[in-house]
Amino acid sequence: MNQEQIERLALPNSSKIVLVVVDGLGGLPHPETGQTELESARTPNLDNLAKKGICGLIDPLGPGLTPGSGPAHLALFGYDPFRFVIGRGILEALGIDFPLQEGDVAARGNFCTVDRTGVITDRRAGRIPTEECTRLCQLLSQIKLNGAQALLSPVRGHRFLLVLRGTGLHPDITESDPSQTGLEPNPIMALSPEAEQTAALAAEWVRQAKAILSDSYPANMVLLRGFSQHPAIPSMRTIYKLNPLAVATYPMYRGLAKLVGMEVVNIDIASSIADEFATLSQHYASYDFFFLHIKQADAAGEDGNFEEKVRVIEEVDAALPALTGLEPEVIVVTGDHSTPAALKAHSWHPVPLVLCSPWCRTDEANEFSERACARGGLGHLPSLALMPLALAHALKLTKFGA
Amino acid sequence: MNQEQIERLALPNSSKIVLVVVDGLGGLPHPETGQTELESARTPNLDNLAKKGICGLIDPLGPGLTPGSGPAHLALFGYDPFRFVIGRGILEALGIDFPLQEGDVAARGNFCTVDRTGVITDRRAGRIPTEECTRLCQLLSQIKLNGAQALLSPVRGHRFLLVLRGTGLHPDITESDPSQTGLEPNPIMALSPEAEQTAALAAEWVRQAKAILSDSYPANMVLLRGFSQHPAIPSMRTIYKLNPLAVATYPMYRGLAKLVGMEVVNIDIASSIADEFATLSQHYASYDFFFLHIKQADAAGEDGNFEEKVRVIEEVDAALPALTGLEPEVIVVTGDHSTPAALKAHSWHPVPLVLCSPWCRTDEANEFSERACARGGLGHLPSLALMPLALAHALKLTKFGA
Repeated sequence: MNQEQIERLALPNSSKIVLVVVDGLGGLPHPETGQTELESARTPNLDNLAKKGICGLIDPLGPGLTPGSGPAHLALFGYDPFRFVIGRGILEALGIDFPLQEGDVAARGNFCTVDRTGVITDRRAGRIPTEECTRLCQLLSQIKLNGAQALLSPVRGHRFLLVLRGTGLHPDITESDPSQTGLEPNPIMALSPEAEQTAALAAEWVRQAKAILSDSYPANMVLLRGFSQHPAIPSMRTIYKLNPLAVATYPMYRGLAKLVGMEVVNIDIASSIADEFATLSQHYASYDFFFLHIKQADAAGEDGNFEEKVRVIEEVDAALPALTGLEPEVIVVTGDHSTPAALKAHSWHPVPLVLCSPWCRTDEANEFSERACARGGLGHLPSLALMPLALAHALKLTKFGA
Repeated sequence: MNQEQIERLALPNSSKIVLVVVDGLGGLPHPETGQTELESARTPNLDNLAKKGICGLIDPLGPGLTPGSGPAHLALFGYDPFRFVIGRGILEALGIDFPLQEGDVAARGNFCTVDRTGVITDRRAGRIPTEECTRLCQLLSQIKLNGAQALLSPVRGHRFLLVLRGTGLHPDITESDPSQTGLEPNPIMALSPEAEQTAALAAEWVRQAKAILSDSYPANMVLLRGFSQHPAIPSMRTIYKLNPLAVATYPMYRGLAKLVGMEVVNIDIASSIADEFATLSQHYASYDFFFLHIKQADAAGEDGNFEEKVRVIEEVDAALPALTGLEPEVIVVTGDHSTPAALKAHSWHPVPLVLCSPWCRTDEANEFSERACARGGLGHLPSLALMPLALAHALKLTKFGA
């Protein structure tokens, strides 16, 4: 199975597919109870979905591999994450809704502290506040390069985005960030002949930035990494013949959705989970595929806050009737990856999945949990298999061969 | 694992493998009972096989993909269905036992109705009876082409087979069937320079056919599609070192078996399932691999006849002792794909599989059902994995590496 084959088989119809992604859904057992976050949560509506539907576990990248948010979502959307690689710079730009243009080279920047000899003493410049970052970015916006524009945006704390805009740019250049203190920033060099101009431009930008920042201790230097260009990604509209809508509060997930050709609803970052489901309902008539992203579970997992992650999952469960009441032909609830509170980080553990449709073969799973999904009728699948399965259950894929 | 690797490891011995393919075996739950066709059927012998053997689910093409009969069987026989593609014309020829020769280009034909302006008003010419189709095919057999023979065979109702025979023919040409009424037939054109002669021959044949049929309303025109050539497929004898026999009542499955190098028993299309098992017994001494094909389950599924599919499965079960009594080293019972009565069509759902051998690791499956197979010891596998597993359990594969 690959996306080209799916493209030849996909055909539009009026059936609707809703993909609910609870970011970081998968977890690990609590040492005291032996129950994961999902197993600890009271989830009557998700359990009912598991009873009526079919469960399984999905692997974002493959056994043992922990994904970032970019590859994890690409895999869910059916794009091979090893083929379509989204660089850190591009991801940073997506995360702040930066209006990227074709050919832009984006990099993730840190303000940092260097001593008198140029050696890095703090890679995060004492975690300066965002206001200071904004002021410094304005200061650095005066830099002029010969042959390209250098566009700057503050992100948060010590982090900023640098975008080089011009013709013939190429992202194949080395990072200046040595990823540790006690060293000088690395020189920026081309990794291929096509990238020599870009390497020279980036190096010149760093040289000017250093001069401008010399009096701005602790933020007296910059580090750049993740030089990357917008990957050419075919649209979900073309491949799957879908009219897709994304409901997501965080810019990065909206950016990822745009990258694969989804329309994106404007929704406040402070919206509640119930607000997100209500927004989906409002737009339900106009689209046939919906990606609803819930960030809070991942944030709780990253914070190591087991109880908060349980609470978020229960909030999703409480909001679910607003979706099931619409009776879409296919509902999928899953995560992009696991974020166990025990690890305070993304992990490699496979992610629980439930798919509910009039055409699904039911299994014996009576609750939505890691354990029930491990024995579920869908078995263990790569996340890449999800889109073909969702399309099939919406009768949107024709037969291959006679 | 691929076929080239298997070929290097396969070695002949006297062990026997029997592959029973219940066409369209997999199903979906009945809305009233929650049980699939297989789960509803009383199958003491199949259940006994599941107890003694090992179960699993197989995916013909991959998650979500619905196969036609051609690719589904190729996958069972261990041939990558995306690599070995069988066109509709060739499949139609196989389906009527037409003696294809190397280099023949075959197409599926319809008699259709066109109005005075040449616009198609009925793609099936009012579904003329087969006798009328036969008469019209005889009429069209008078057509002479410059540089190739045009061989014609009636199929059924409005359907016929056209075979172009000559040197240098190439199937890469467009179809004349626009797949809808209200349009004129499409002109036939070459899609590559090598196919220009073939496109001209096919177009000339259509021109003459139209003239001959002008007074044969409602069958006053023809539509052609699925131009294809016999694919070059290595024989199961070469790859697996087997001496294989096919027992199948329907011509298409006999044709598919021939395509991969099996010998084919002559058996009446009206033979019962018990007759098929008896035929296998009669030839048991002379072969070491048997493909026994049971069409009736798929036909019942396509008709949406849940009860009839249950009955067919029970008939297979009743016939099974004639096979188990022979004590072959490996018995596999599975399907080529699912055909749930609820969908009245082939589907993407994985197919139950049981493999029984003195060398199989048994599991906890005590009955042959979709649910038991989903938890079976073989797990979820691509259909392509079946042949290596069957050969291994017959001790016909040597070790890879030292």
